[in-house]
Amino acid sequence: MNKTIHTERLAALRAELARQGLDGFVVPHSDAHQNEFLPPDAERLAWLTGFTGSAGTAVVLADRAAIFVDGRYTLQVRDQVDGNAYEFLHLIETPVDCWLGTVLGEGTRLGFDPWFHTQAQKERLARVVTGAKADLVSVTENPLDAVWTDRPPPPAAPVVPHDLAYAGRDSAAKRAEIAGVLAKAGADAAVLTQPDSIAWLLNVRGGDVDHTPLPLSFAILKADATVDWYVASQKLTDGLAAHLGNGVSVQPPETFADGLKALSEKRVRVASDSAAAWVFERLSGAEILRGEDPVTLPKAIKNEAELDGTRTAHARDGVAMARFLHWLDEAAQDATIDEITAADRLAAFRSTGEHFRDLSFDTISCAGPNGAIVHYRVTPETNRKLEPGSLYLVDSGAQYLDGTTDITRTVAIGTPTEEMRDRFTRVLKGHIGIANMRFPDGTTGGQIDAFARHALWQAGLDYDHGTGHGVGSYLGVHEGPQRISKAGSGTALKPGMIVSNEPGYYKTGEYGIRIENLVAVTPPEAIAGGERAMLGFESLTLAPIDRRLIVSDLLTDAERDWLDDYHARVREVIGAGLDGPRDTSVFTWLSAATAPLS
Amino acid sequence: MNKTIHTERLAALRAELARQGLDGFVVPHSDAHQNEFLPPDAERLAWLTGFTGSAGTAVVLADRAAIFVDGRYTLQVRDQVDGNAYEFLHLIETPVDCWLGTVLGEGTRLGFDPWFHTQAQKERLARVVTGAKADLVSVTENPLDAVWTDRPPPPAAPVVPHDLAYAGRDSAAKRAEIAGVLAKAGADAAVLTQPDSIAWLLNVRGGDVDHTPLPLSFAILKADATVDWYVASQKLTDGLAAHLGNGVSVQPPETFADGLKALSEKRVRVASDSAAAWVFERLSGAEILRGEDPVTLPKAIKNEAELDGTRTAHARDGVAMARFLHWLDEAAQDATIDEITAADRLAAFRSTGEHFRDLSFDTISCAGPNGAIVHYRVTPETNRKLEPGSLYLVDSGAQYLDGTTDITRTVAIGTPTEEMRDRFTRVLKGHIGIANMRFPDGTTGGQIDAFARHALWQAGLDYDHGTGHGVGSYLGVHEGPQRISKAGSGTALKPGMIVSNEPGYYKTGEYGIRIENLVAVTPPEAIAGGERAMLGFESLTLAPIDRRLIVSDLLTDAERDWLDDYHARVREVIGAGLDGPRDTSVFTWLSAATAPLS
Repeated sequence: MNKTIHTERLAALRAELARQGLDGFVVPHSDAHQNEFLPPDAERLAWLTGFTGSAGTAVVLADRAAIFVDGRYTLQVRDQVDGNAYEFLHLIETPVDCWLGTVLGEGTRLGFDPWFHTQAQKERLARVVTGAKADLVSVTENPLDAVWTDRPPPPAAPVVPHDLAYAGRDSAAKRAEIAGVLAKAGADAAVLTQPDSIAWLLNVRGGDVDHTPLPLSFAILKADATVDWYVASQKLTDGLAAHLGNGVSVQPPETFADGLKALSEKRVRVASDSAAAWVFERLSGAEILRGEDPVTLPKAIKNEAELDGTRTAHARDGVAMARFLHWLDEAAQDATIDEITAADRLAAFRSTGEHFRDLSFDTISCAGPNGAIVHYRVTPETNRKLEPGSLYLVDSGAQYLDGTTDITRTVAIGTPTEEMRDRFTRVLKGHIGIANMRFPDGTTGGQIDAFARHALWQAGLDYDHGTGHGVGSYLGVHEGPQRISKAGSGTALKPGMIVSNEPGYYKTGEYGIRIENLVAVTPPEAIAGGERAMLGFESLTLAPIDRRLIVSDLLTDAERDWLDDYHARVREVIGAGLDGPRDTSVFTWLSAATAPLS
Repeated sequence: MNKTIHTERLAALRAELARQGLDGFVVPHSDAHQNEFLPPDAERLAWLTGFTGSAGTAVVLADRAAIFVDGRYTLQVRDQVDGNAYEFLHLIETPVDCWLGTVLGEGTRLGFDPWFHTQAQKERLARVVTGAKADLVSVTENPLDAVWTDRPPPPAAPVVPHDLAYAGRDSAAKRAEIAGVLAKAGADAAVLTQPDSIAWLLNVRGGDVDHTPLPLSFAILKADATVDWYVASQKLTDGLAAHLGNGVSVQPPETFADGLKALSEKRVRVASDSAAAWVFERLSGAEILRGEDPVTLPKAIKNEAELDGTRTAHARDGVAMARFLHWLDEAAQDATIDEITAADRLAAFRSTGEHFRDLSFDTISCAGPNGAIVHYRVTPETNRKLEPGSLYLVDSGAQYLDGTTDITRTVAIGTPTEEMRDRFTRVLKGHIGIANMRFPDGTTGGQIDAFARHALWQAGLDYDHGTGHGVGSYLGVHEGPQRISKAGSGTALKPGMIVSNEPGYYKTGEYGIRIENLVAVTPPEAIAGGERAMLGFESLTLAPIDRRLIVSDLLTDAERDWLDDYHARVREVIGAGLDGPRDTSVFTWLSAATAPLS
């Protein structure tokens, strides 16, 4: 990467800041919707600095500049960004706010674009800037955009109906329910800025960002259950208007500000942790009721059609995984396979599946020591061969019309060491600890996270990431509010929620292990002899877990029973999904890979 | 109980309110220190209403009155309080604030005594009163005290030094450390209102409240490590001044207000969730830094002398428990024992122990169905015989000079049912799940609480209380900040903290089960083959767990090993503490009660 071009861009931005009378500017890695995956026209941080990671912020002042990234990216940022132009800082150890508090001089005019900071972020920023007796200036023309002359146009992928067969509930019913919640809370309207909330509410899908079928848009949901939908009309496909019905009024995106101003004097629900500060500025005449996006929770609780869809999608995804793992076992014999060929082959297996639309994220395909880099993405430079005596870790998923998948398997290449097998078995015990859990209504992910770590803790081991994230229904592969993590989220796990179950273990420089299935929270079930109905988990993901890596003696009877039952179900469902004549050898492989342990 | 007298008291209070120009008054069950156990002169709620429970609030208005209690006391309050004079409300379902918001008329003058509400409670109250356009009036003369003409005098138990051999660290070192923390946070002083914090900081003990060796007092700790101690001088015993040294200045309690006013213009740390609103009123000229009581955390982390003391105290307590359980097994044969005789006998066994000072709370002695009432306290009216085929649950503890104990055992009287044994074994599995836990630094009690419930959850069962509370060192049997509970406390478990491990199971109308040991968090320990040092628990309590109630087949090998190891330690330590000639039959009984399971 040529760093000179970024030095020039930094100079151009500084000139524009001077022209606008600003002493500095904050450039976060974000767009107006707080999307996880940014469209190309929103990649401002990468354009300016060269840094392509998924999280970070640059601050440009007249005489210094800094870029803040977290622990995943401390090496990458040094590789991609000019150390003469930017100081490198750790986002967690030195938060942007704290750093600004120490460097801003009195009277400094620090610019920020209110589209790219949530209201909560803006308020934190304002606190330190005010504390330093500096001024926080909300720009109306983004100075970076002014100098980014060849910025790509915004994405304009077609918006299509999401069929009722997959959505399970029509939009009018969803809108009526949430409008009822708003009305009960005394709100006249809610502003929706999260594209996945809007896509779910209106039963539409699009393609404006990678790996997630989202149309970028904004919406205002009224307490009478109607919606003003601010979306570029050229994205709308034939028949969409009929699908939307009378309750949804399509508006040009440039009139969103007018729509917000029209809420003056009204009581308006806005999520301060996801809505842009820009929205709050435009709502200055309204009474703002801060609260969660009202769509988040109903969206997270999947209905029967969504659950049936995801089961079907997972069966299909499991067929692709079985073909891939069978291929891998054979191909890995001659040590010519590398991370890229493996990832490509897996994508190819998936792409022939019915309703396949996209991968749900860039495949994490890791040979040997690369498996210990938790957020590893293969590049031609880092690409490694799969070598005998190593572990191969593959974390991948797909977007199907009927469901979103996300699975991680760790596979022995050649003969694994006893240590690898011990560690793998402990991770498996953690996985089963979650999968087999029964728990009362009201239990949060934070209360059960440690069951995924227990067998590692007993051996003086652990892993430094959460155990599970929520997953959408042909939507985001990461969604809230539920999760399984040490910190917890305060949200109880409710029947119908989908969450990943993915404990791991990582030995730096040697190997990584992770076993991930998606699970759905099951409805309250009476237990024979018990008094309280209990929730539990249904494992949605169906693919063999490598038996060659399991030390059977480390498992309890109940754990062995779980694994054997799970494998029997994999054999039955995936076996039925295989294509008899074409997949004969896959079927034979599957039978062996899912045989009972004992 | 004669309810007429309380009707008269209510009328007298109303007359006094009218005299003071007030339309209402709030009477919480609390004192100026937010003590758990109130001294007699602070039992205002009981004096006014007749209600003797440990938590509740009354609100008296001109034309109506209400009393708020939680689920433990819904029956008791109806029994003790006149339903014609008071409405009965549920403290959780209808919080006092919410109710006031609905009943206060515009302009109503509602009085409260700022001594008996924390600042945080006052602020919540102020929000609803202001919302109702009523006035919240901070009284300077408590109208209830004005009509409670025969109110007992405040307690004046002697204050004695707490010997360095038990405290482990002298007060000057403790004060210097905490003063350093204050100075670093930019505070000039901290106001201490919790008697146990002051007792720990100054290495003194007293006896102003039941079951806890506390002198009631207030203190101001300065950033120079000196303390102004507001305590009645007649309570101080000979030699105490020398023990306190030059850094502690004893002041008359009535000058506390002047001491606070003298902090004007200073930066003062105060705990808004424990300090009285009165303190905040007197600090109006100071810059208040809200934060935890700075003594709470250091006090919770016991030093080596405190840990050694508690081990010795627990060995001694275990001898009393062994003598009691042996006596019980013999005496219960003829079914003449009742809850009161059993509790008395246990107290008698304890009281002969070295350094015994008091019980640490009123013994919870429950036969049969009374065991299912979690906060049961025996009275002559409820006293039950211990009958064959039932369970006896006894939760008790003592204050020894070298440590505070708290233990629960559940004992089979005659032949238990298979259901009782199944439930007991599941509770035991939960107890061992906590006792055997290893966990990394930073883990909170909320993250591990579910391990105590897991075996119950799997069977559709649970219990509705927390799993563990912190315990002091010859101080409160309940102390923070650590705990093991679903809600968690955000406080990480640190080496040296003492916490109870007490899962249970309760079958209403039939029986209750609880197994409680105190445990101490152990220092980080490297584990063979592991990478991260792990914390764990040392079981401090030493008494047999009833083997007749254990279904051995329900335990894993690791659980059986834990129990056998624990029992071997009980046999060794308690056996050595028994008195040879006198305790021969106890020793024989102990050997059988602690024999290996398998």
